[in-house]
Amino acid sequence: MNIAIVGLGLIGGSAAKALSGFKDAHVFGIDTNKKTLEKAEADEVIEEGFTSADNILDKMDLTIICVYPEALKDFLNKYKNDFKEGSIVIDMAGVKEYVMKAAKSSGVTKRVNFIGGHPMAGREVGGYDNSLDTLFEGSGFLLVPDEDASDESVETVMQILKHMGFSSIKKTTAEEHDETIAFTSQILHVIAVALSKNDYYYADKAFKGGSFRDYTRIALINESLWSETLMENRKYLLKRIDEFEDEMRIIKQALLDNDKPSLCNILRNDRLLKED
Amino acid sequence: MNIAIVGLGLIGGSAAKALSGFKDAHVFGIDTNKKTLEKAEADEVIEEGFTSADNILDKMDLTIICVYPEALKDFLNKYKNDFKEGSIVIDMAGVKEYVMKAAKSSGVTKRVNFIGGHPMAGREVGGYDNSLDTLFEGSGFLLVPDEDASDESVETVMQILKHMGFSSIKKTTAEEHDETIAFTSQILHVIAVALSKNDYYYADKAFKGGSFRDYTRIALINESLWSETLMENRKYLLKRIDEFEDEMRIIKQALLDNDKPSLCNILRNDRLLKED
Repeated sequence: MNIAIVGLGLIGGSAAKALSGFKDAHVFGIDTNKKTLEKAEADEVIEEGFTSADNILDKMDLTIICVYPEALKDFLNKYKNDFKEGSIVIDMAGVKEYVMKAAKSSGVTKRVNFIGGHPMAGREVGGYDNSLDTLFEGSGFLLVPDEDASDESVETVMQILKHMGFSSIKKTTAEEHDETIAFTSQILHVIAVALSKNDYYYADKAFKGGSFRDYTRIALINESLWSETLMENRKYLLKRIDEFEDEMRIIKQALLDNDKPSLCNILRNDRLLKED
Repeated sequence: MNIAIVGLGLIGGSAAKALSGFKDAHVFGIDTNKKTLEKAEADEVIEEGFTSADNILDKMDLTIICVYPEALKDFLNKYKNDFKEGSIVIDMAGVKEYVMKAAKSSGVTKRVNFIGGHPMAGREVGGYDNSLDTLFEGSGFLLVPDEDASDESVETVMQILKHMGFSSIKKTTAEEHDETIAFTSQILHVIAVALSKNDYYYADKAFKGGSFRDYTRIALINESLWSETLMENRKYLLKRIDEFEDEMRIIKQALLDNDKPSLCNILRNDRLLKED
């Protein structure tokens, strides 16, 4: 089985490393950065690296595209006729309506089994040098198969994901993915960034405990990638922000009213629900 | 040196455990729960436990009060004439204007060296059973000495705090404490609680990564304690919430305007500032 990884950054590099030992897989890397390819070859993470996808993709049974959503769209449009007929193509981008529409309109979904993907794992640092063979251990993975992808191709991808270390693999739709991820991931980072703008963010470290350190880490995002994915998902993200602001208003009102029983009730409900 | 710990919960229990081996200290416990005292005696964390502070405090060189702010106020008013003259009394509550005013108006600050305190450490679980001798290792501690407390008493307290494991000990004022802590701790928990009210909070775990798990832990607060401390600090907390809402509005506007360069700039500034 020939596998190409397009983009050997944090996710692509970790995917290549985590593929080690998967059946009879031969892993190849495609990246514009020659140095990265040389490193991955020296690490024996890939068998061979290519600075362009030209004349490569028709030999691949599986292509894993690990680039930003807009670059992914361009890649699909450029190479739509190059993929091996009936092969599997998956992506690793954090938005799925955008990606699935881009795949559909490129026509690639008629030629290959196109399966959208989103690994729920990351680090505060990016690039191949920070990639880890254990990055996906115990993490979730969201799968969004195109309507024309075969059940067999989805099954193959699931086996590969399990080998990579993912422990919760869920098939979902592009819509459910995007509206849910706007909450379970995107708004959390947006809030942490908004907080980091406050002058008190730079208070003496004696004022800061574990919660502060958690928020700080969550605020550390790659601005190029995240400004793309947040913007591509702004329809749902704005809804989640509105819902959050409504809940903040309720707490704020309890504070304004000096209404301790209400405030206590808000805090208590939360705890009880989570212990279910 | 005789030391009494009032309230052997998570903080008081951890303080008693962390005092082990401090010079010639004799540690006593005061708690309304007889079972807790028996456990602490069996653990050799305290030499002796008392279910009431009556006839105890006049033998203590240091009294560490680890109860909720309102109970602390009542305790000071009830026992103001019982503390040993010239001894040291510190508290461990998360708000300081409220506590320092309560101490002043009780008259106790004329009899003892009263020093407000706030350990920047905690757990998602409370009570003596969850207390740890290592809870304060590497944590911050905020000290708010009353104007009548001697420099010597502050120095003694600092030595004890270092022995307990605190690594950043900062002297501050009640006002600076409360306005800063409203940001570095309180608003972080308020936001996490507000988020936990959303239905998407209960999405399949495959949608959730490390950031989600961090927020979940931060939302797990003791509602009785926190409704008290948040309400006692509502003046500053409401200011911090307003400031946060202003920053959220800026991000929201960039999303509404589909203005990716602005959004990218907001996210990038954040990263650059934190790398200083």
